[in-house]
Amino acid sequence: MTQVLDFAKRLIAAPSVTPATGAVFDAFESLLAPFGFEIKRFIRGDGAPGTPDAPVENLFAIRHGPPGSKHFAFAGHLDVVPPGQGWTTGAFEPEVRGDLLYGRGAVDMKGSIACMVDAVADIPADAGTISFIITGDEEGPALHGTRALIDFMAAAGHTPDLCLVGEPTSVHRLGDMMKIGRRGSLNIWLEVEGKEGHVAYPHLADNPIPKLVAMLAELDALVLDEGNDWFQPSNLEITDMEVGNPATNVIPSHARARLSIRFNDNHTGAELSALVTEIAERHGGTARPVISGEPFLTPLGEFSAIVAEAVKAETGIDPEPSTTGGTSDARFLRAVCPVIEFGLCNATMHKRDEAVAIEDLAVLARIYRRIALAALAR
Amino acid sequence: MTQVLDFAKRLIAAPSVTPATGAVFDAFESLLAPFGFEIKRFIRGDGAPGTPDAPVENLFAIRHGPPGSKHFAFAGHLDVVPPGQGWTTGAFEPEVRGDLLYGRGAVDMKGSIACMVDAVADIPADAGTISFIITGDEEGPALHGTRALIDFMAAAGHTPDLCLVGEPTSVHRLGDMMKIGRRGSLNIWLEVEGKEGHVAYPHLADNPIPKLVAMLAELDALVLDEGNDWFQPSNLEITDMEVGNPATNVIPSHARARLSIRFNDNHTGAELSALVTEIAERHGGTARPVISGEPFLTPLGEFSAIVAEAVKAETGIDPEPSTTGGTSDARFLRAVCPVIEFGLCNATMHKRDEAVAIEDLAVLARIYRRIALAALAR
Repeated sequence: MTQVLDFAKRLIAAPSVTPATGAVFDAFESLLAPFGFEIKRFIRGDGAPGTPDAPVENLFAIRHGPPGSKHFAFAGHLDVVPPGQGWTTGAFEPEVRGDLLYGRGAVDMKGSIACMVDAVADIPADAGTISFIITGDEEGPALHGTRALIDFMAAAGHTPDLCLVGEPTSVHRLGDMMKIGRRGSLNIWLEVEGKEGHVAYPHLADNPIPKLVAMLAELDALVLDEGNDWFQPSNLEITDMEVGNPATNVIPSHARARLSIRFNDNHTGAELSALVTEIAERHGGTARPVISGEPFLTPLGEFSAIVAEAVKAETGIDPEPSTTGGTSDARFLRAVCPVIEFGLCNATMHKRDEAVAIEDLAVLARIYRRIALAALAR
Repeated sequence: MTQVLDFAKRLIAAPSVTPATGAVFDAFESLLAPFGFEIKRFIRGDGAPGTPDAPVENLFAIRHGPPGSKHFAFAGHLDVVPPGQGWTTGAFEPEVRGDLLYGRGAVDMKGSIACMVDAVADIPADAGTISFIITGDEEGPALHGTRALIDFMAAAGHTPDLCLVGEPTSVHRLGDMMKIGRRGSLNIWLEVEGKEGHVAYPHLADNPIPKLVAMLAELDALVLDEGNDWFQPSNLEITDMEVGNPATNVIPSHARARLSIRFNDNHTGAELSALVTEIAERHGGTARPVISGEPFLTPLGEFSAIVAEAVKAETGIDPEPSTTGGTSDARFLRAVCPVIEFGLCNATMHKRDEAVAIEDLAVLARIYRRIALAALAR
């Protein structure tokens, strides 16, 4: 317990709002160094701060088992969302109060990274090959994060057999939920161009707003599907509208809106993009889709059984296999090998006074050790 | 011709973007001073620049005829809209090129004010009582402009029998249109409050945008009326929408829109405000109406005949009596006495390189003289 708590504090104490580079990776490297890992760090992105191309640090660490070993990977991120206002103590000054450790990243997900380092400390090197896939941009645009790590691994010939992502998947109690899949995510920018004019002479203008309103009404009424065995129904939300016309007597020249679609494996991003584009164009507008990630599903089987048995052994709980919630870097890792996500309780993630139960850190380290050993012993 | 052109240049040379005070009123006062008018200038409004309560100058000038005289008033504004970019020469540096005088306010409406001053120069004082009702805020919020002048006139016992507003009503040729009425104008701010949340968990949020979209679709489909003998159909335009949500993965907490309704005398502002408010509330939102002006109509009769005969005599044209277009300060003056609007060609108003035909200035001065004399001789 002392060691994993210390690990978590050291990671939290390095401020690392997305995109993270430098100190937090130094801290992580110093935790892992005693345990025999080869560590490769690299920075990708050369854009200005605040752009999707801003520099991001990534780290791949591997400890090889004997020839022919299985390869078990743990994936996570050292970046955190901005702390915001109103913290009781500093967001980057880890503090224990009562049974809890407070600090940004306590559950999402410096805490779980600390648990995995603690877990490998007790795993003998001859148990098999273990790797860490750690990025500094999971919470942001993620252009130069896990995708770059996957490219690096492919080039270096490192291909895991199974990958556990340490996102905070537990809801009420540590162990109550694991993610065996995630919905896909698609954002679409809509625009209608019109012709500016004076409201007193509407016949000389072409107001784009009624066209956009009709388009959005049709899109909002869509029923994409009813869900399936493993996924809830796909959902479309209109997340923004913008005209930006300060003049009460002017008909504006353009109107814009933005959609977010979270979709299950009944669909692909391309198919939904085409559907929305057809509707937008029929109403005289245009659509610009950006697919953030396709859905993935690791069907119940050997990997989910390994995770469930480890959780049950340490907590007595049968984790619910779920596909709910947002996206994670599993959307990229799915292309490499089977992926499951399991980690701490997410009640305080992205909130002020983010905190983890100290006891949960100890339990999760033991769960991770069991998962790794079982994955390597297959 | 020399005098009216000189008058117009002197007014244009005083920059007077709304709200106007000072120099342009000094220039006007110096034009009018030789002709025996009592002049009262006053500033209203004590707010900060850029607010609707910013200081505005107003001027009332009167020359009394013999006891029992009729009182003919000319109303206008010395403020102008901002010049914008791209002028061939300075917007406030009046310049004659060819047959045209260029400068901001050339037609809207320093030119027509110059014409009326030129007209009264040749009207003997015993013809009757003539007044000028001149504001520095017609193009802006108009809170402290003509309304304040009307209050001043009422308190001082100055009540015109007829009022001509010198707005640029001509379209293709000087004399082709006069305004005998104007539609009312109403702006309505709409808002729907929801509950912010993450797009991945829509059941925990309440997206206000679909409610606003349904509200706007219903409002856009309204047919307010089919028009009547003197007015075109009332018209509703959606002029703005705003959510202001930069985050693609967030369901926003509010959505706003704005309407502009230009309405004929089939309606009142209050009745339309109630109609829109009912629709907004039925869709879970709120409406905040601001009535800019009620419609007015000066039915065809003695006053319109005076204007038409003066125009015909000087141009050979029968002016079309119209109620089209935007609002003007006639919306306020209608409460004082019958009002008709007649002035220069409006093709270049509010545009860069605003210009008036020099010949039109001379003709309009003669038309105004005929109107004033006929109005006083009734």
